[in-house]
Amino acid sequence: MSNAEVCCSPVTERPMSAEEAETAARMFKALGDPVRLRLFSAVASHEGGEACVCDISDVGVSQPTVSHHLKKLKEAGLLTSERRGTWVYYRVEPAVLAAMGRLLVESSAGALT
Amino acid sequence: MSNAEVCCSPVTERPMSAEEAETAARMFKALGDPVRLRLFSAVASHEGGEACVCDISDVGVSQPTVSHHLKKLKEAGLLTSERRGTWVYYRVEPAVLAAMGRLLVESSAGALT
Repeated sequence: MSNAEVCCSPVTERPMSAEEAETAARMFKALGDPVRLRLFSAVASHEGGEACVCDISDVGVSQPTVSHHLKKLKEAGLLTSERRGTWVYYRVEPAVLAAMGRLLVESSAGALT
Repeated sequence: MSNAEVCCSPVTERPMSAEEAETAARMFKALGDPVRLRLFSAVASHEGGEACVCDISDVGVSQPTVSHHLKKLKEAGLLTSERRGTWVYYRVEPAVLAAMGRLLVESSAGALT
């Protein structure tokens, strides 16, 4: 079962099951650190929708720290990665992002439609 | 500046600033615990969009633990509360929820529009 499948039920629709909450909480937790969230945004907003550590220099943390956080985001299912030559390129996982968004947004549909 | 104002820029649009990331990460972190996320969903999906500790009994944690987590969610700006008689009633903050959703969802707009 993918993260995207597990976490789609809006929080306002019915109480989440323990299993759904485990999966979704892991993803929210990964975004619950300011540096990690900025790095996630740096990757997500980078040209072509992907970035390597070599592309990210303005968050004010060392390259090993950047690598560490990107790995954590990947482990949480929020990024995918691909090695090309010297560098590992990270890309956002759009389906997962959309599923997390739906989890929150259906609850206030009026504000978005 | 409210949480809703600070956290609206989609992560794919541009890298988040340190200030934006601080605010948004605090909210994501609050949802980054499975029990807290289930309680959040229990409140959000409860009849009338609000619930007191007395309404929540099926998450498998004690009433003081429920109270503790609901307070944390309130501190993070995700719930508002109102005392009526013996009980404090919690309610989701729709604007904040919508803002968090937008942060994630614009990046895959096709999935939602």
